[in-house]
Amino acid sequence: MGVGTYEQFLERMYKMKPNIYVGDEVIDRKDPRLAAGFYAMRQTFDCAHDDRYKDVCTATSHLTGETINRFTHIHQTQDDLFKKQEMTKLLSHRVGGCIQRCMGIDALNALSVVTYEIDAALGTDYNQNFINYLKWTQEHDIVANCAQTDVKGERLKRPHEQSDPDMYLRIVEDRPDGIIVRGAKSCNSASPYVDEIIATPTRFMGSKDNAYAVSFALPADWPGVKLASLPGLRHKRTHIDAPIAHIGDMESLTIFDDVFVPNERIFLNGVRHPESTRFAGFLAIMFAHFHRHSYTGCKPATSEVLASSAALVAEYNGIEKTSHAQEKICHIITVAELVYAAGVASAVRAVKMPSGTMIPDEILTNAGRKLAGEEIFNEVAILTDLAGGLIATLPLEDEFYSDDIGPLLNKYIMRDPSIPAENIHRCFRMIEDQLVSDFGASQMTAGLHGGGSPQMEAVAMMGGYNVEKLKGIAKYLAGIEPDIPIYKRETVTPRRVLEKFEKTQK
Amino acid sequence: MGVGTYEQFLERMYKMKPNIYVGDEVIDRKDPRLAAGFYAMRQTFDCAHDDRYKDVCTATSHLTGETINRFTHIHQTQDDLFKKQEMTKLLSHRVGGCIQRCMGIDALNALSVVTYEIDAALGTDYNQNFINYLKWTQEHDIVANCAQTDVKGERLKRPHEQSDPDMYLRIVEDRPDGIIVRGAKSCNSASPYVDEIIATPTRFMGSKDNAYAVSFALPADWPGVKLASLPGLRHKRTHIDAPIAHIGDMESLTIFDDVFVPNERIFLNGVRHPESTRFAGFLAIMFAHFHRHSYTGCKPATSEVLASSAALVAEYNGIEKTSHAQEKICHIITVAELVYAAGVASAVRAVKMPSGTMIPDEILTNAGRKLAGEEIFNEVAILTDLAGGLIATLPLEDEFYSDDIGPLLNKYIMRDPSIPAENIHRCFRMIEDQLVSDFGASQMTAGLHGGGSPQMEAVAMMGGYNVEKLKGIAKYLAGIEPDIPIYKRETVTPRRVLEKFEKTQK
Amino acid sequence: MGVGTYEQFLERMYKMKPNIYVGDEVIDRKDPRLAAGFYAMRQTFDCAHDDRYKDVCTATSHLTGETINRFTHIHQTQDDLFKKQEMTKLLSHRVGGCIQRCMGIDALNALSVVTYEIDAALGTDYNQNFINYLKWTQEHDIVANCAQTDVKGERLKRPHEQSDPDMYLRIVEDRPDGIIVRGAKSCNSASPYVDEIIATPTRFMGSKDNAYAVSFALPADWPGVKLASLPGLRHKRTHIDAPIAHIGDMESLTIFDDVFVPNERIFLNGVRHPESTRFAGFLAIMFAHFHRHSYTGCKPATSEVLASSAALVAEYNGIEKTSHAQEKICHIITVAELVYAAGVASAVRAVKMPSGTMIPDEILTNAGRKLAGEEIFNEVAILTDLAGGLIATLPLEDEFYSDDIGPLLNKYIMRDPSIPAENIHRCFRMIEDQLVSDFGASQMTAGLHGGGSPQMEAVAMMGGYNVEKLKGIAKYLAGIEPDIPIYKRETVTPRRVLEKFEKTQK
Amino acid sequence: MGVGTYEQFLERMYKMKPNIYVGDEVIDRKDPRLAAGFYAMRQTFDCAHDDRYKDVCTATSHLTGETINRFTHIHQTQDDLFKKQEMTKLLSHRVGGCIQRCMGIDALNALSVVTYEIDAALGTDYNQNFINYLKWTQEHDIVANCAQTDVKGERLKRPHEQSDPDMYLRIVEDRPDGIIVRGAKSCNSASPYVDEIIATPTRFMGSKDNAYAVSFALPADWPGVKLASLPGLRHKRTHIDAPIAHIGDMESLTIFDDVFVPNERIFLNGVRHPESTRFAGFLAIMFAHFHRHSYTGCKPATSEVLASSAALVAEYNGIEKTSHAQEKICHIITVAELVYAAGVASAVRAVKMPSGTMIPDEILTNAGRKLAGEEIFNEVAILTDLAGGLIATLPLEDEFYSDDIGPLLNKYIMRDPSIPAENIHRCFRMIEDQLVSDFGASQMTAGLHGGGSPQMEAVAMMGGYNVEKLKGIAKYLAGIEPDIPIYKRETVTPRRVLEKFEKTQK
Repeated sequence: MGVGTYEQFLERMYKMKPNIYVGDEVIDRKDPRLAAGFYAMRQTFDCAHDDRYKDVCTATSHLTGETINRFTHIHQTQDDLFKKQEMTKLLSHRVGGCIQRCMGIDALNALSVVTYEIDAALGTDYNQNFINYLKWTQEHDIVANCAQTDVKGERLKRPHEQSDPDMYLRIVEDRPDGIIVRGAKSCNSASPYVDEIIATPTRFMGSKDNAYAVSFALPADWPGVKLASLPGLRHKRTHIDAPIAHIGDMESLTIFDDVFVPNERIFLNGVRHPESTRFAGFLAIMFAHFHRHSYTGCKPATSEVLASSAALVAEYNGIEKTSHAQEKICHIITVAELVYAAGVASAVRAVKMPSGTMIPDEILTNAGRKLAGEEIFNEVAILTDLAGGLIATLPLEDEFYSDDIGPLLNKYIMRDPSIPAENIHRCFRMIEDQLVSDFGASQMTAGLHGGGSPQMEAVAMMGGYNVEKLKGIAKYLAGIEPDIPIYKRETVTPRRVLEKFEKTQK
Repeated sequence: MGVGTYEQFLERMYKMKPNIYVGDEVIDRKDPRLAAGFYAMRQTFDCAHDDRYKDVCTATSHLTGETINRFTHIHQTQDDLFKKQEMTKLLSHRVGGCIQRCMGIDALNALSVVTYEIDAALGTDYNQNFINYLKWTQEHDIVANCAQTDVKGERLKRPHEQSDPDMYLRIVEDRPDGIIVRGAKSCNSASPYVDEIIATPTRFMGSKDNAYAVSFALPADWPGVKLASLPGLRHKRTHIDAPIAHIGDMESLTIFDDVFVPNERIFLNGVRHPESTRFAGFLAIMFAHFHRHSYTGCKPATSEVLASSAALVAEYNGIEKTSHAQEKICHIITVAELVYAAGVASAVRAVKMPSGTMIPDEILTNAGRKLAGEEIFNEVAILTDLAGGLIATLPLEDEFYSDDIGPLLNKYIMRDPSIPAENIHRCFRMIEDQLVSDFGASQMTAGLHGGGSPQMEAVAMMGGYNVEKLKGIAKYLAGIEPDIPIYKRETVTPRRVLEKFEKTQK
Repeated sequence: MGVGTYEQFLERMYKMKPNIYVGDEVIDRKDPRLAAGFYAMRQTFDCAHDDRYKDVCTATSHLTGETINRFTHIHQTQDDLFKKQEMTKLLSHRVGGCIQRCMGIDALNALSVVTYEIDAALGTDYNQNFINYLKWTQEHDIVANCAQTDVKGERLKRPHEQSDPDMYLRIVEDRPDGIIVRGAKSCNSASPYVDEIIATPTRFMGSKDNAYAVSFALPADWPGVKLASLPGLRHKRTHIDAPIAHIGDMESLTIFDDVFVPNERIFLNGVRHPESTRFAGFLAIMFAHFHRHSYTGCKPATSEVLASSAALVAEYNGIEKTSHAQEKICHIITVAELVYAAGVASAVRAVKMPSGTMIPDEILTNAGRKLAGEEIFNEVAILTDLAGGLIATLPLEDEFYSDDIGPLLNKYIMRDPSIPAENIHRCFRMIEDQLVSDFGASQMTAGLHGGGSPQMEAVAMMGGYNVEKLKGIAKYLAGIEPDIPIYKRETVTPRRVLEKFEKTQK
Repeated sequence: MGVGTYEQFLERMYKMKPNIYVGDEVIDRKDPRLAAGFYAMRQTFDCAHDDRYKDVCTATSHLTGETINRFTHIHQTQDDLFKKQEMTKLLSHRVGGCIQRCMGIDALNALSVVTYEIDAALGTDYNQNFINYLKWTQEHDIVANCAQTDVKGERLKRPHEQSDPDMYLRIVEDRPDGIIVRGAKSCNSASPYVDEIIATPTRFMGSKDNAYAVSFALPADWPGVKLASLPGLRHKRTHIDAPIAHIGDMESLTIFDDVFVPNERIFLNGVRHPESTRFAGFLAIMFAHFHRHSYTGCKPATSEVLASSAALVAEYNGIEKTSHAQEKICHIITVAELVYAAGVASAVRAVKMPSGTMIPDEILTNAGRKLAGEEIFNEVAILTDLAGGLIATLPLEDEFYSDDIGPLLNKYIMRDPSIPAENIHRCFRMIEDQLVSDFGASQMTAGLHGGGSPQMEAVAMMGGYNVEKLKGIAKYLAGIEPDIPIYKRETVTPRRVLEKFEKTQK
């Protein structure tokens, strides 16, 4: 029951109402432009039934004891964190990059922590809403994404100061049976092919921002939810099919056009419980934190995919053993290993929250995500360097199969006579897809900004790091202080945000 | 006469025979997929008639004294080099990057030097062929590209050692009236919309490579010339037209399928004159050198275009004045200025060759091109960073004009209320075109590999630099040698290749 | 018994014979120029008795069950690896960088693995020699360093091919009671103030290099052992004493001038057992590997010391809260965390060798050490940047205490009135010691080369990494292979060297 | 007359009064600790008489028509700028880095421009003071430095806001015959061995900062001028003398302890002429600008010195021809060429000021200086990398000449048998001096901060760059504006500061 199938997922999708805006159309989930996104989601179902992946792709529900898809699991142990990282990495290999479903698990885990703490502090019952929702999610292997990034309008103004009050998603009406919300969430990946959209705040909210302290979950085709979409372009292959040719995504600006959310789907409501507003920032960064831990799985995978292509094309180009090629490939591998290590070490230092959820160390996950973001363009540059200009000038696929010039193209693409022309063609065609395409280029942007850019990680790190204690080392060595504070860094979690909020309120 | 018009150029194009292979079609120059390339070429004609650009875009022919388009001019003075650099830079601004016509002028200048030296050494008449060709070119404002990069087959083998002897363009027959050539040139930009293709060797040729020492010019639709093409994808704009939406290119693998070249179009023939084979490397690097000098014009322009977009989007995002945005924009500007400076300084140190052609310093042009290549991905990363994830998730253009969600999209894209939604939309749409598109991504590859990757420039620099003399400084400071060799670097030119060749032959 | 005291150590030192060459003198261990080195060693004794550090600085001997100093322990468990890393990090904080005693523990652990395997393969009794030696070491809390780096002569020739056969340490005579060795080991840190010097090979040895396959341990003042030394310069403080002013080291070129090694101190002898020559490379890289794991402790500490000084001086300079200072400090912290994470993750993936010794994963330790080496100069640049030019122009200490200009200097060094002049003086004086001094500058070299430069780590990584399996990802995505090899990287250990050797011999 | 000799300079030095504080002493110019500084200054005299350098080291005074030392010349033409750059570069080769005398010429040129403009605006006679001073300077070949960097106290407060009003040099009394000044200038290189100290403001001064708008020149031993010094440490060579061993400097915190400046030596007095206060910032940045242009001479020289050592030690280590060594050396050469090119291009775009002084372009000089500052630590890292750990562990010089171990050290330092041991020893000893020494380390700090750190250059560049015009390119390409502003960057000079000041005052 708790480990669904792709077919069940697809059946749910096909029943949904059309609310996907693509150009001048409004389409439903049967539209072929969604196939590339479904391809990614499919891996998360199929692998959970595949003996080779089952160990990392399933888990035991702490609510029911049943076997469930790990994408719906709340991390209970260090091992859960290890396995979530490994699952994310292995599945990302299969799709050459983003596996797209991590938003859901990260949002669920964040809510598990924060709703618990709100209720503990305020006596509310958000956690009960959440637990009910989670059970349903686990039972049906529900796919969710997370709508977090508000459009933000004037960047230097807080939500309640904006000229247009709708620039952050807000509660326009609090009713006995629920709330009406209005606003839009940007950069909302995969929304056209998920069951559920979970909305969370994108930043700290101050005491005047009660209307903006809101979190909930809704079906992706709920009345008033409008998905203004950007389909990733796909190259249609006519002769040489390959997994890379099936992979893509669809992004949306997700508009909440005065949408009703019933009470049982609400996880935070700053209008009804003004005291809960201070948990908005905690929830925002809690999601970001779990998401960055996911990146310690997918980003090493992305680096490894790039290193893999780099090694293959270097072999085909006959330069694999040159020292410069070795060093460049090694550089990408080094990045992959370090980002991966950051995730492992963050799990080694994980702590259990009052809700029972395990949280990895925040400094380490952010350090890993930061390096990944800083290196993505450099990694692409290395692959481009080793591949050569051909990836941007490769004649179209059909030309290789033309009676006239096909034989000539297959002749002139040859390098080492032992490697068939088709393999070389496949390799360069794949790199074209990876780098020199709409989708490929968008993945670089995602590599920099997805889950927060390096600048955001620096802010998170410096927010959590005890710099005063760090200075104690210098003060000791300089003779300003008589002894060193035993400097063993303690685990840092996003809860610091809440503590800081409470401190500044005094 | 010497300054043609776009209309004349187009008329010539429309008369050409179809030899452009695109997918499963063979198209001629009226095909709309060539429009983006024509757009770039058009600037080189129109600006030569525009009072604001005329000074840099025209020159006085040293052959006829007539005013000609500078793209057909042989540099006679330092000022010619300054103006060629400036022209390249200014026109590149207009097309947001590569102006596409520089290959022609660079090939012509290279041939002016090398054919002169061959004749001086061997008593041949290649220079006369060239002069006649040049006159015709200047008179009709002919557009040429340069086919240099052979497909190269097994990278570690020399041309005559290849399993398939056709992996470098070669002479398969030397006849009284001309030659028959066979082979293919890769990464051949703009070939579908030029008048002429000038073929040059891609590397040094040794004494067994006579058949590969060949250079000539032919009309781009000449019998046997087959252009296996890759059209750059273009986003069709339906509502907000803009120059960026018109810009693109078309690349080809240019196949010479046993092509006859008449004597008067031959500039180097190692079969007929085996002694001339040693000039093949000189010609190869001479073209690369002029081309890298051109890059000191277009690469600063590319950087400035990126810095321009970065500054505009930073303003729209309300972060223009933050110190991190300032530093990032400043970094791109610094690269632009340094690459530009390398071109200026290389012209300051230019020397006049026996043929009368001015050659800039080779170390400086290569240093400039090298920096540009090393920085291109970083510059794109900066623009991506300042723009944010929206460039990869912006809903399609039509959605902004939909009756249903159009008003919502225009509402939610707003930032500073004083900036109209359409301007913001235009700005992000432009950056999407620049970065998150097939064409945009291909420009990064071109930025790294066009004219030779940084690794190639390092090889050229270390080939020309007098490292032994440089060591004299250390030997003096260490007391190993009694005095310093007065270390003023002398101008280095590709002629060193010829001298080295002659030295190694003894 | 197994946890010695600094006083016992010093007593042993004072009994040693003078064999330390400093300029035109030969000195013994009472010479004040050794004080700085003793200062570092002292921490390793004192902290083992300090409740705050005891947990990480002591261990339980697997041989005797007694409590011993961890610097003499053989890692038996994952937790041992965690604690060794933590100990190295915490003690390095106390000395502002290198704790200097890790060579000993790393050499012992390497020998524990390799001597066991030699005996298992060849029926020799090197491991028994080692176990006896280890027991004595643990009992007396012996300090050892490791002499590994041969002077190497002509770099491109193998040991037996050198013009001078002594360019690698070699056995010149194999006698019944032992061997006579000749040669020199370069960059031999701390040799003037250790009990024992452990010699190991520096590279692979082929079948003609039997005489160079040698490992042994000797007292540092053994007849024929000559320490050609370089004392680190120390600034004598006259007024403001501080820990940083006590820290330094002494390096040597350690000459083995026809030295006799008795049988019981020999751990590898390729002359006596030619089959054992193939273990030379295994031992060489086994030591390097444990040493690089140590670097995942000391290098984060070094980064944290630099970040600590950077944060303190930024505070004193009043720029701590600027975004550029925050980002720069964050950069150093990120490096520290990632290198630390590499060590943690390598321990998580550790495997137990046949000898019972735990070995961390080689790819991860090397990735961590590599990043540290690549970043050290950048980290120093950041501290220099935030500190300002004053660190290189600070008037001498005495001038601050002069009746004439002392008050003026203390006046003009003031910044925020709440920070006393002396603290500011102390802070800048410390940074001068850390960066703008002989010792400080030598630490940068050590940061790059100590334990092997980044280039060496790249070689080790690419030697151990299964690139062919990695390529499987690309082959799957490109459609060249039908499925992905389940890509979970297996733990890599230096034993691969032995396996490779055996493969190439066939 | 106008080209003095080292002997004349020394004679003047020896007559000066002792005011150099070194530790607990007050020394005069005969003290041997000044020898290293004199060594550098000597080059500027000797080379002006050396036929090989005369062309760049002398000039024709525009005041008297006489031949003078170029270090006292006011640039009149583009060629003067070229030659100043070349002189700085060539002399810097001779001292392995900073030639130390450029501060004087840069301060004089800045004063030539600004005093002229003050007088033109206010009818004062500062320029006459300056001209008289310049004549005397040129006649006697006077050596001057420039005291610019105030100690600055609380960094975020303006001069008049400081808790201690003396944190910026200020006029404490304006008398009929002159002024009394109080304050201190930090990082004041070479002051113990110059004839004259020229004081200039360090930043913009607002209307409340009149007392801080002050510039003047005084003999370096003038009553009340106290030089709190830091002598660079020198390694005394006993056996292998070499130029590098003679080079050093002496820095000071220069204290003006209520010093009287006579009227004829005053170039700016904001107390007497409050309107002139607005020229303080112009003068500050004008000096910085000429100084950064000087850096386009000395920084390429510094890079070339490092590249020279790198190439030599790579040869001695037998790795010169490896691709990684070639690429690393090429990287340093590239930096040298680009920084040099920035200086050349800035001179090509130079403009003549109303005073007749030629000013190079400010964007280009800053771009060059910025790159140099960003790369210095990386260049040192490269040299360290290629040299190996020996530079930090080389036994002391005397040990190589010991009867006992000398022969062994000379044996074990050998590499290629054709290179004598002494040469190898000299090479590593030199690199030790260059990198692993107090002086060497201080040169890295100087390379980053001297003349302003990269951050300062970024500020200068963004202050002068017309970013609004730059944005015009993006607005055109996006279709926001109908045409591109013809984007040819105009020459930028520090006069922009004055214009901006005047604009903000309105």
